[in-house]
Amino acid sequence: MQAAARLIEAHVHRTPVLTSATLDRQFGSSVFFKYESFQKVGAFKARGAVNAVLSLEDGDASRGVIAHSSGNHGAAVAYAAGIRGIGCMVVMPAGSSAVKIDAIRGYGAETMLVDRSLLSESTHARAAETGATFIHPYEHLDVIAGQGTAAMELLEDHPNLDLLVVPIGGGGLISGSIVSAAAMAPNLTVIGAEPEQVDDAFRSLQTGIHQPPVTAPLSIADGLLAGLGEKAFDILSAAQTEIVTMSEDEIVDAGLFHLQRMKTVVEPSGAVPLAALRKISGDIQGKKVGVVVTGGNTDLAWLPSRPV
Amino acid sequence: MQAAARLIEAHVHRTPVLTSATLDRQFGSSVFFKYESFQKVGAFKARGAVNAVLSLEDGDASRGVIAHSSGNHGAAVAYAAGIRGIGCMVVMPAGSSAVKIDAIRGYGAETMLVDRSLLSESTHARAAETGATFIHPYEHLDVIAGQGTAAMELLEDHPNLDLLVVPIGGGGLISGSIVSAAAMAPNLTVIGAEPEQVDDAFRSLQTGIHQPPVTAPLSIADGLLAGLGEKAFDILSAAQTEIVTMSEDEIVDAGLFHLQRMKTVVEPSGAVPLAALRKISGDIQGKKVGVVVTGGNTDLAWLPSRPV
Repeated sequence: MQAAARLIEAHVHRTPVLTSATLDRQFGSSVFFKYESFQKVGAFKARGAVNAVLSLEDGDASRGVIAHSSGNHGAAVAYAAGIRGIGCMVVMPAGSSAVKIDAIRGYGAETMLVDRSLLSESTHARAAETGATFIHPYEHLDVIAGQGTAAMELLEDHPNLDLLVVPIGGGGLISGSIVSAAAMAPNLTVIGAEPEQVDDAFRSLQTGIHQPPVTAPLSIADGLLAGLGEKAFDILSAAQTEIVTMSEDEIVDAGLFHLQRMKTVVEPSGAVPLAALRKISGDIQGKKVGVVVTGGNTDLAWLPSRPV
Repeated sequence: MQAAARLIEAHVHRTPVLTSATLDRQFGSSVFFKYESFQKVGAFKARGAVNAVLSLEDGDASRGVIAHSSGNHGAAVAYAAGIRGIGCMVVMPAGSSAVKIDAIRGYGAETMLVDRSLLSESTHARAAETGATFIHPYEHLDVIAGQGTAAMELLEDHPNLDLLVVPIGGGGLISGSIVSAAAMAPNLTVIGAEPEQVDDAFRSLQTGIHQPPVTAPLSIADGLLAGLGEKAFDILSAAQTEIVTMSEDEIVDAGLFHLQRMKTVVEPSGAVPLAALRKISGDIQGKKVGVVVTGGNTDLAWLPSRPV
C-alpha cells in the first residue's frame, strides 16, 4: 500500500477531508468525508488505474492497455495510460453518452462501442489481437492496492477513526480499504454500503457463499452495479465485513445532503455511505467515522425536479 | 492580518484549494480556487464576523451584537456571537426564506423581520435601545482584516501567485485581500470582479469619484448587490485596482463550470471571479492565478432547467 502510494503520488490528488458540524450534532459523532469527487477523472478509480498501469513491466506496457467500462474506470485507465505514454483502448457499451466518450478520448485513448452483453468478450478478443494488457476494474491486486490509498490518506490525517464506511460494487475499494486499515489501524471497523437493488455482496456475506451478480441491476448508484469480485469476496469474508443496504430514496436523500449542506456534487454511488450511516446512526454515537465519497461524475438527473 | 488569523483560527476552516487541469490547459495558466463555500456558515463572511466579535472588549460584548443582512453576514455574526456566548440580533428583510431565518436561529440568534427599506434604520434604533454593538458587513476594519485571512491562507499555500481575483460587493473581501497581498506578496496584482448589473465599483474606480449604489440592483449574484463601501473605495483607489465586469449569462456559465467540472456548489457571487478570468484570458497566459470562491449558499434556482 505504501509502495502504491509512492508510485501514484505525483499523479493523483491528495483529496480534501470535509466535515459538517450539523451532521456531527445529529449523529452525536464525528464524521470525516474523504471527497474523491475531487480526484483526477472525478473518482477514486484514478488511484487503482494509475497504480496498475505504472506497475506494468516495460515490455507489457509497450503493447498498451485495454479496459472495458461504462464509467469511471475507463476514464481512469485512459488517464493512467496517458501518464505512461502508452496506447489505450476503452471498450464501452453502445449508447454511452457523448460526454463520457469525449472525456476518454480527451485523455488520448481510443474507444470502441459494442453491445453491453459483449463488453467482456470483445475486450478479451481485442486484447488477444493486440497484446494489450487488460486492466480489470477490481479483480486486480494492483488496482486494489491503489484504491486503498484513499483510506490510507484518510487514516494518516485522522488516525483514531473507529469506523470507515465505503461503497461496494465490484469490491475493489473496500478490499483496498480493509488492507490499509489492517496495516494502519487494526482496531478500525470497515463497513460496506450497498444499494438494496444490487445487494449481492450483502447476501454473499450473509450466506458465506459467493452469490451471482444481480441480473439486470437497476440502481441510481450506477457505479455499484457490478457483482462482488472473487478477490473481494475472499477479503471481505476473512474480515467478516458488515454490509449495510439502503433504498433508492435513501440514496437520493444522502446525495441531496452532499449538494445542499456539504456544497459538493457527488454521484449517487458516492452518497451511499452516508445513507448507510443514517441506517446505523444508533450505533455510531461518540464514534469517529470516516467515509470515502467515491466520485462526482453525474449529470444530476437523480435530483428531484426542484433541487432545494 | 496575522493577529486576525490567530484570533479566528480555532473557529474557521482552513478551506481547500482545488485546481482543474482542463481549465489550466484552456487558459495556459495555473488557477488555484480557494473554496470558501466549504467555510463555516458556507461563506468567507465567517472570517470577518468572528474576528470582529472576538475583538470586542468585554464590556461591549456583554451587551451583545446586532447586524442586518439578507444573507451570509447575518449567519456569520450569529455564528460568531455563539462562539463568544453573547446575545445576537439579526435584522432581516421581510420575505426572507424560512431556510435563512432558521439557519440564523439555529446559531442561537434572535431575528427581526422589517421592510427592506427600513433595515438600516431599524437596526440602529434597536442598537440604541439595547446597547448592542452593530457589526457592519464591510465598513469595519476588523471585518476587513478577517476577510483578508482567506487570501492570506491562499498565499501561504501558493506564495508565487501573479494575480488574485475576488468578487466585489461592499468591498470588504477585496479590501482585506489587498492588505494581505501588500504584506505577503507585493508583486501580486489583485483584480476585482463585479457583475455588470451592479457596476458601481467599476464606475467609481474609472471616474475616481465614489459612485452611489445602483438603485434596485438586480443580479443573480445576490451577495454582491451592496454598494462599494467608503473604506473599500479608499483602499481600491490607493491600490489602483482593476475591475472586470461580466453579464448575468457569463456568471451562470461560470457557476455551471464549478458544478459540472469542479464538483462544487457555489453561489453565483462565488462564480463571478471565474467569469472575470474568462474575460481577461488573453492576459493571464503563463500566470499563476488565485481565485477566492466566496460561498456556496444557493438554492440552485439559477441553474438552467436541465442542469447538465
